[in-house]
Amino acid sequence: MISVDEARERILAALAPTGPETVGLAQAWNRVLARPVTARLTQPPADVSAMDGYAVRAADAVEGAVLRLAGAAPAGQPFTGAVGPGEAVRIFTGGFVPQGADAILLQEDATASEAGIRVNETVTLGRHIRRRGLDFAEGAELLPAGRRLTARDIGLAAAGNHPWLAVHRRPRIGILATGDEIALPGERIPEGGIVSSNAHALAALVASAGGEASVLPIARDDAAEIAALAGSGGYDLLVTTGGASVGEHDLIQKALGQDGFVLDFWKIAMRPGKPLIWGRLGAVPVLGLPGNPVSALVCAVVFLLPALARLQGLADTATPMLRARAGVALPENDKRADHLRAELKRDADGNWIATPAGRQDSSMLAVLARADGLVLRAPFAPGLAAGEMVEVIPLAALGV
Amino acid sequence: MISVDEARERILAALAPTGPETVGLAQAWNRVLARPVTARLTQPPADVSAMDGYAVRAADAVEGAVLRLAGAAPAGQPFTGAVGPGEAVRIFTGGFVPQGADAILLQEDATASEAGIRVNETVTLGRHIRRRGLDFAEGAELLPAGRRLTARDIGLAAAGNHPWLAVHRRPRIGILATGDEIALPGERIPEGGIVSSNAHALAALVASAGGEASVLPIARDDAAEIAALAGSGGYDLLVTTGGASVGEHDLIQKALGQDGFVLDFWKIAMRPGKPLIWGRLGAVPVLGLPGNPVSALVCAVVFLLPALARLQGLADTATPMLRARAGVALPENDKRADHLRAELKRDADGNWIATPAGRQDSSMLAVLARADGLVLRAPFAPGLAAGEMVEVIPLAALGV
Repeated sequence: MISVDEARERILAALAPTGPETVGLAQAWNRVLARPVTARLTQPPADVSAMDGYAVRAADAVEGAVLRLAGAAPAGQPFTGAVGPGEAVRIFTGGFVPQGADAILLQEDATASEAGIRVNETVTLGRHIRRRGLDFAEGAELLPAGRRLTARDIGLAAAGNHPWLAVHRRPRIGILATGDEIALPGERIPEGGIVSSNAHALAALVASAGGEASVLPIARDDAAEIAALAGSGGYDLLVTTGGASVGEHDLIQKALGQDGFVLDFWKIAMRPGKPLIWGRLGAVPVLGLPGNPVSALVCAVVFLLPALARLQGLADTATPMLRARAGVALPENDKRADHLRAELKRDADGNWIATPAGRQDSSMLAVLARADGLVLRAPFAPGLAAGEMVEVIPLAALGV
Repeated sequence: MISVDEARERILAALAPTGPETVGLAQAWNRVLARPVTARLTQPPADVSAMDGYAVRAADAVEGAVLRLAGAAPAGQPFTGAVGPGEAVRIFTGGFVPQGADAILLQEDATASEAGIRVNETVTLGRHIRRRGLDFAEGAELLPAGRRLTARDIGLAAAGNHPWLAVHRRPRIGILATGDEIALPGERIPEGGIVSSNAHALAALVASAGGEASVLPIARDDAAEIAALAGSGGYDLLVTTGGASVGEHDLIQKALGQDGFVLDFWKIAMRPGKPLIWGRLGAVPVLGLPGNPVSALVCAVVFLLPALARLQGLADTATPMLRARAGVALPENDKRADHLRAELKRDADGNWIATPAGRQDSSMLAVLARADGLVLRAPFAPGLAAGEMVEVIPLAALGV
């Protein structure tokens, strides 16, 4: 058995980011930049007013002075003249500060009348003026490669005048569920069989992380059928579920073994989980997850999410964590890294409290679905009292 | 000026969830359930083995006994006979426990030979058997209405034998940017103008929260054009940007006022932000955001995200928050609720530290994009020392 960390490192080391593609700005949300975005213009393009008011010469705009209104400079319609001594130009937020002006008189500090603009409060030189380039200068890097684009990033790329962006192609993930005993939801369930739940759950997990999943038809427990479906490819990664353990009815290894499969079969020191296949079928990396739905999903969180991050070219492949206080005492852990299905609540002070479900049986999908997160327990972690800190993978917040 | 909370309550009170639609399980991730999902079968459907081993009668399986191998019960292929006295049936994880058996002998606790199955460790009655219905019973509610579906939920709905789910229709959000001075990215920028960044950033924010955005063509500062575009409709909510403040060039109110617009014009005690329109154009609710990109996005986080949650029928419309220690001392706040753009880092103990950017000018979109979150400062919040706790909206984690 190898450790979770070592297994993850070996998986990540074997994967490379997908190539770039051009997408329209409107399609770029949540995609990962393949190239940095640099500003194609300077913002603001000139000194602009930060407020509604009057562009003035600070030397003139002392309390009690009455200035002559020489024009207006709303946003988008620059005043083409200059502000001369004793003059004021009406200006609005974002309007270019006209030549000659060096301060803004706020409209609430002025009284406009037939006589002119009366200054009710002396202005300060440079006040309420946003300098050219305050936000960014032409050529500056706005967004680095390897960044997953947020809504704000889309706004910033737009402001930098980019209608198109270069992002990593979405990784294509083939998902192959195997087993004579499973049937798709709504189809006839074989005698003694169960409904296939892994493939579509894994497809949703792939979507949550920005990948593109293809759910393949269920493969019977037949080496030739498994091999044919597994090789139907073009995937950046093939994920199988079922058939990964060492029992007599575990065919994945046998099936793939006939077809140029380079197998690195692992048992991983984790719970739930343990049997996991990692290898390569020709050029396609293969991740073989357990058939047990809870084990399959937890292993996918631990190994497939980072793999998807790497395939998309994300700078940081680590899955976000949060810290919480344990809601109950936890016993010493054995040699397998544990992933306890837990409820997350906030206490009166607003701190997270993570309380593992009383029963952690790895067949209980409903318990997993109702959990808010997975409490991590390292191998041989000592027992801890209620209130001590634990690390939690916030599943619900990740959409997983 | 009204408070942020009151404004949000008035917005939420005016919105109702969209109606239900049927989607395939494969399209249901991240959608919000319109009807509860109940189990259409019992899982497991019978008592099943939790391990690979042998189904036995506990009374017979004492250390040193040798049992007769009577058959096999792999998952999906139930053994149709019964386990008689002195007999064992090979069984695998998930296999139905045959009649007569009442315990599982682990394969690592047994030695198989020509002579039979030797018991190396006495079994316990009922051990390693998962009882029928352990995960869920037919008719049990698996997932409640109002829940946003995670990958695990998709798995659970599949396991409950649902190929289709009833979810709330994605809210359709029209986004109308206004202003003579703005141009789409890559198009000719008018003299003194800037690139339109709000509409596509808001569309991305709508996508991040599960809505469907239509970006309308930019409306010039012309009441008739604004009214025509605003009424081009069929939206669950129309969002405008620009023209919300009180300056002479703010036309949204005027434009919509001609067309049966019921206006509830607000100034909201918040920063950045303040000018915000909330009303109704015929049957369509209208949220008028400021034109300033930072203000528009912060107001969208504060008001549009909860509105999208309500429109989708989410049980909880609150935006997720996290608690962090302030990285620097913060001064007393004035009467406006503040939303400080801040970096989030974890300290050596793993606690979040939120450090507001030194300059909070509301024109600085790059500062907003680089921020990891918004530190909330309530009106009149007293000054606090570095290390004291603050509430933070984790923008990046929300995809915003």
